[in-house]
Amino acid sequence: MKKNPDSLREMGARAVGLVLEAAGADRVDSLYLGNMLSDELQGQKHTAALIADAAGLSDLEALDIRAATATGAAALRMAYLSVASGQAELSIAAGVEKMSDGDARQALARALDAETEIPAGETLLSMNARLMQLYLDAHKLEYESFAPFAVNAHANAVTNPLALFRREIDLETVKNSKLVAPPMRLYDCAPVCDGAAAVMLAPTAHARKYTETPVQLLASAASIDRFRIEDRADPLGLTASRLSAEKAFRQADIKPEDIDFFEVHDAFSIMSCLALEACGFAERGQGWRMARDGDIRPGGRLPIATMGGLKARGHPIGATALYQTCEIFQQLTGSAGPNQLKRANRGLLQSIGGAGTTILTHLFGT
Amino acid sequence: MKKNPDSLREMGARAVGLVLEAAGADRVDSLYLGNMLSDELQGQKHTAALIADAAGLSDLEALDIRAATATGAAALRMAYLSVASGQAELSIAAGVEKMSDGDARQALARALDAETEIPAGETLLSMNARLMQLYLDAHKLEYESFAPFAVNAHANAVTNPLALFRREIDLETVKNSKLVAPPMRLYDCAPVCDGAAAVMLAPTAHARKYTETPVQLLASAASIDRFRIEDRADPLGLTASRLSAEKAFRQADIKPEDIDFFEVHDAFSIMSCLALEACGFAERGQGWRMARDGDIRPGGRLPIATMGGLKARGHPIGATALYQTCEIFQQLTGSAGPNQLKRANRGLLQSIGGAGTTILTHLFGT
Repeated sequence: MKKNPDSLREMGARAVGLVLEAAGADRVDSLYLGNMLSDELQGQKHTAALIADAAGLSDLEALDIRAATATGAAALRMAYLSVASGQAELSIAAGVEKMSDGDARQALARALDAETEIPAGETLLSMNARLMQLYLDAHKLEYESFAPFAVNAHANAVTNPLALFRREIDLETVKNSKLVAPPMRLYDCAPVCDGAAAVMLAPTAHARKYTETPVQLLASAASIDRFRIEDRADPLGLTASRLSAEKAFRQADIKPEDIDFFEVHDAFSIMSCLALEACGFAERGQGWRMARDGDIRPGGRLPIATMGGLKARGHPIGATALYQTCEIFQQLTGSAGPNQLKRANRGLLQSIGGAGTTILTHLFGT
Repeated sequence: MKKNPDSLREMGARAVGLVLEAAGADRVDSLYLGNMLSDELQGQKHTAALIADAAGLSDLEALDIRAATATGAAALRMAYLSVASGQAELSIAAGVEKMSDGDARQALARALDAETEIPAGETLLSMNARLMQLYLDAHKLEYESFAPFAVNAHANAVTNPLALFRREIDLETVKNSKLVAPPMRLYDCAPVCDGAAAVMLAPTAHARKYTETPVQLLASAASIDRFRIEDRADPLGLTASRLSAEKAFRQADIKPEDIDFFEVHDAFSIMSCLALEACGFAERGQGWRMARDGDIRPGGRLPIATMGGLKARGHPIGATALYQTCEIFQQLTGSAGPNQLKRANRGLLQSIGGAGTTILTHLFGT
């Protein structure tokens, strides 16, 4: 893994510093930090205060927030509540993960049930592989149905200077990649990596004090499914995705067809497919067709992973939803460079904690 | 340590179930879970969703929230923001810690700086002992100045059926107790323990749907000091206590003298003393006098630890501020039994993360 020379706190403080600088602000009322693995990888808790302090901030609220692999989105949601409640004029949602400090596999698996799933050797990979097999069986499909998701992500990452894997791949590469947990292959999985990101929220009426190109956080919602896949009535329905998306659409009073692009949680290709269906962009059993038919590509009906996604951009857990928020900001403000979509007025962000257990949906607009 | 026969999730789910039952509710919009140590002690992350699921809740937001040893208060604050923002009609703040599942010392120390303090062998105990010595030196006091804090906590715990140590102690017992980290003695330290607690928040206008005796959360605030004691300009000023209390008093538009009782974070007696000063109840260097003179006892000028405090009630980290909230509810509603204060219209709660780094202040009223 490419190791960041900075420490966890330096990475976090740098991201916070950059957003403060961009906003021309030297203080904020609150900072919510998303980090999932510092207990194990850095032997560090209490990271929000640590990083706020390292960034030179004082007299602010600084709290740690988590939702397993959706942790970055949880930080964003807390900043949203902080501003929406009137308790903060300026709030930062920051995320940081330094996966290169150790072997994160055991700690990551703790997103699963420690009494039943972990002792049975299950991991996020094995649980997602199970869902993928269920899907293939339920809809009588072959493995290659999923391959176009990785191809799209890699194609989009080529022109993103911040992406981890900036090279195109073809369907054959995906189909011939290592079988890591049948039926899942290496290219169905996003790589974990080091990363940090931060965004700043202010009340809509004041946002122009801090940027000439504010975007609106139109809706924020979260829901859960049964914790364990085996307890779910409809594991392929990705219920928490559907419920949180429905809440978000209701809050913003818009419909799925009003969404121009979707930053999905493509930690595993099966999740992209299920989320497209759960959010109402495809019929049940048809999500993979959107990938096959090019609907998810830039210029398609619903571009996804427009800057490379978790698959090619990388998945630094606590930072992931926050770099995705930055990318949505770029798309909505016409500053996405070679990756700029022609139509980008409404962007959807969804983040998945565990194997579909906790899902947060955020909706952004110009 | 007295071990709870239930697992972490069972303890958490039971607390959540009890508050649902008390409110006659079968669903809530959000649940914020406070737990500091499950990564290490139970090999479990993602506890909010796990416990919401174990409690039979579905289609709700469930997120984990932390602020080191002030974690329970962070959960309370998030529930407050959730309701205050209008995003939730009903929100639960729950906390659970099962310390008897392992040796928590190493994990607890992770509230400190993992690059400098932890490698030097520092613990929350050693850092608090350092502050205690600083205080004794600054004000030219003898150790026994702190002894009355533990005596008060133990006296109050005798009639609290939920307290860990239900026996009176005298000043001699404290002064002759084991020197655990000079100048700190055993009876200056609250015991960690298993515990779970939950409270429910609703908008003030709707609260009577759920209880005949609602209390108001008048203010909620958080602040941080420099992370490490050695970086603080005024370590004995407990800056985060002062700043968060000032914010809370401003929010509620009341003054320290309007407060009838104070549930302090008496994890260490030095913290009770410093908090009394930082919140404006005593002059600098005079907090210990309030204990000596009986001001902190029931019937005194400002009763503290009225049900036994962390010292005698026990300190189950993530659950602590939430059982304290329940105790404040009891005092404010006249249901504190033998521990009932005569005058209990305004109660203050303060919670400390790390060695004074992160401090949350909540203010309750009838």
